Order: sequence, then C-alpha cells, then structure tokens
Amino acid sequence: MKEKVVAELSIVPLGTATPALSRYVAACLEPLKSAPDVRYQVTPMGTVVEGPLERVLELAGQMHQVPFSLGAQRVLTHIKIDDRRDRLQTMEEKVAAVR
Amino acid sequence: MKEKVVAELSIVPLGTATPALSRYVAACLEPLKSAPDVRYQVTPMGTVVEGPLERVLELAGQMHQVPFSLGAQRVLTHIKIDDRRDRLQTMEEKVAAVR
Amino acid sequence: MKEKVVAELSIVPLGTATPALSRYVAACLEPLKSAPDVRYQVTPMGTVVEGPLERVLELAGQMHQVPFSLGAQRVLTHIKIDDRRDRLQTMEEKVAAVR
Amino acid sequence: MKEKVVAELSIVPLGTATPALSRYVAACLEPLKSAPDVRYQVTPMGTVVEGPLERVLELAGQMHQVPFSLGAQRVLTHIKIDDRRDRLQTMEEKVAAVR
Repeated sequence: MKEKVVAELSIVPLGTATPALSRYVAACLEPLKSAPDVRYQVTPMGTVVEGPLERVLELAGQMHQVPFSLGAQRVLTHIKIDDRRDRLQTMEEKVAAVR
Repeated sequence: MKEKVVAELSIVPLGTATPALSRYVAACLEPLKSAPDVRYQVTPMGTVVEGPLERVLELAGQMHQVPFSLGAQRVLTHIKIDDRRDRLQTMEEKVAAVR
Repeated sequence: MKEKVVAELSIVPLGTATPALSRYVAACLEPLKSAPDVRYQVTPMGTVVEGPLERVLELAGQMHQVPFSLGAQRVLTHIKIDDRRDRLQTMEEKVAAVR
Repeated sequence: MKEKVVAELSIVPLGTATPALSRYVAACLEPLKSAPDVRYQVTPMGTVVEGPLERVLELAGQMHQVPFSLGAQRVLTHIKIDDRRDRLQTMEEKVAAVR
C-alpha cells in the first residue's frame, strides 16, 4: 500500500492592485493538472490534494512560485497536511465518514 | 446588501485514544445544522461556512466546545475567514471564478 | 481556575497595491492594547493571545475590522486556538515545555 | 541577494492518548538543529523558520516524519510561508516593523 496524504493548499498574492485574485488562483492549479500521481479538488477556501507526501510538498513549492511569475511581489502560502498511517483514507472517504 | 464572509472551520481534538476523529467532526456540525442564517459545505479538510461575520465566529465558538462535551481534554481549532467587501461572493462563485 | 486558551491571530489585507503590510498589522493590535483581560505577544508570523475563549473570539472579530477602516476591501484572517483543559498552560509554559 | 522566506511550522500528532504533546514537539525540532542554513525560533503556537524556500519545505517534510518515528499514527502539519521578494525581511525585522 502506497502511503498518501490528504492536504489543503492555499496560495495568495499580497499587494496586488485589486482584491480579485481568481486569475492567480486559477494559474496556481496548472502544476496539479500535469501531475498524474495526485488527485485534487477545488473548494471555496483552497485546493485539496491527495498524493504521496513528497509530491504534495514538491507541487506546493511549484504552485507557490506561480503568482511571482504573474507579477506578484509577495505570496502567502498555507499548506495543511493530514497524514494518517493506520489506514488509507481518500478525500472522498474523509467526507463520507463525517456524514 | 447584507455582508457575508466565507470561512473555513477545522476543529480537532488532541489526545484522543485513537486516530479516528470522524465521530467528533460529525458532532461539531450540529450547531451549523440548526443555524438557518448560515450555509455550509463539508470538504475533506474542513467545513466551509458562509454567513455574517459575527455569526460565523459565534458558531465557531460553539463548535469548538463540542469535542469537550464528548470527553476530549484538548481541542485545536482553525478558523480562516475570507471577507470581501468590494462585492458579495458566495462559496459557489468563489469556486466558479477559478475554473 | 478560570479557563484560558492560547491562540494565534493573523490578519492580512488583500489587494492593497503594495506588499508592505506592517501599517495594517500595527493598527490591528490596538484592540489588544485596551484589553486588560488578555495577554499578547507579537511573533514574526502572527500575534499570540492568551485569554478566555469568548474574549479571544470577540477581539479577533474587532481586529479583523481594522484593515477595512484603513481602506482595505478584502481581509484574510486566520485564528488558531489551542484550548487545553486538563491543566492550565500559559504562553511561556508552552515554549518552556518544548525546551 | 539570496532569497529567503519566513515560515511557521506546526506539527501535531493525533490520537496520542494524552493531551500532552511537548515530547513530540521537542523531537520535531531536531532536523532544524542540524540545519546550518536556516534560523528558527520557537513560539507558543509553532516554530518560525527563516531560510531558502526549498530548504524550508524539505525540513518541514523531515519534521513531519518525526512523530511517526515516536509511535504516532496520524500527524497534522501546518506550514505557512511568507515570501516577500521586493525586499529581504528577517524574522526580527518583521516584528520590529509592527512596533
């Protein structure tokens, strides 16, 4: 059984000209779209990612760079990792367990 | 236009006997179920809530108490609030804007 | 024994045109300065607050309003609450326990 | 000028049977102690780290593994990265700017 984590990523540029940030958030998803070994889901407050720990951290680092390439001068990134090793739990199973 | 925020709440008991926490998370949703003035959505990494700022904070405080009533002795709560006042944006619109 | 929590607050305006935010962060501390029942400490990544749960949430709500009064149109606030009830632990004791 | 970020790391084991976690938190600092290229500071709610982005992510990944090596079966890790590239700002300068 390959170990996987469920994580949430939130990448926000600071000091942009307007409060609208969806252009940046959409661009930050690009590294995830070309990553066949992770699954992801956009929520109203972040992006949930499921995959191996090292890959999630690697992709988070790539996504964090994206707003700079679009002109931002400061980026605030939050990464939250839930890593459960007594048993594998997918994104969908986590939600189903609560219901 | 009534001001609303979109927030994400995560309430986790520490020092429980087992790593399985869904029983606690499910119980934490009860205050939201009886709150007609807020909308909510469970995600794999938290609960997204949409409503007036004061109500979201009040409900977060109530939800934070729930694990103690189930026997927990320590609770770690994260509240993330996105409050945009140049224009109203619902949970669904935030996700749609990124797509 | 009066129950207290240790919390961390981070209040960030978005879309402020420049990446320098210390003016906003400094102003957000004002509600804490006139709150005799909470103690606080500024760290490089947020403000740590110690006090009763309800007061911490109330003050967080007040601090969250401050950047709007300075012209911000969007504010992102993070509140992290560590509430331990098996024994009282101050901010200083938490740090000392790790050393 | 070598780019550096200021980050905050919080690594918490879940399901540890007791609410006391300082043993785990202290052990998580070990990778930082042997990292000459990063500076760190323990706060009541996390560990603030200053260093190159890739190193901070690498060390966060190492620190996240520590509680598992001590018997934990589930670990919840929060990483917050403040990356400002218009000018270099140290941990101490961030606090001084607010005062």
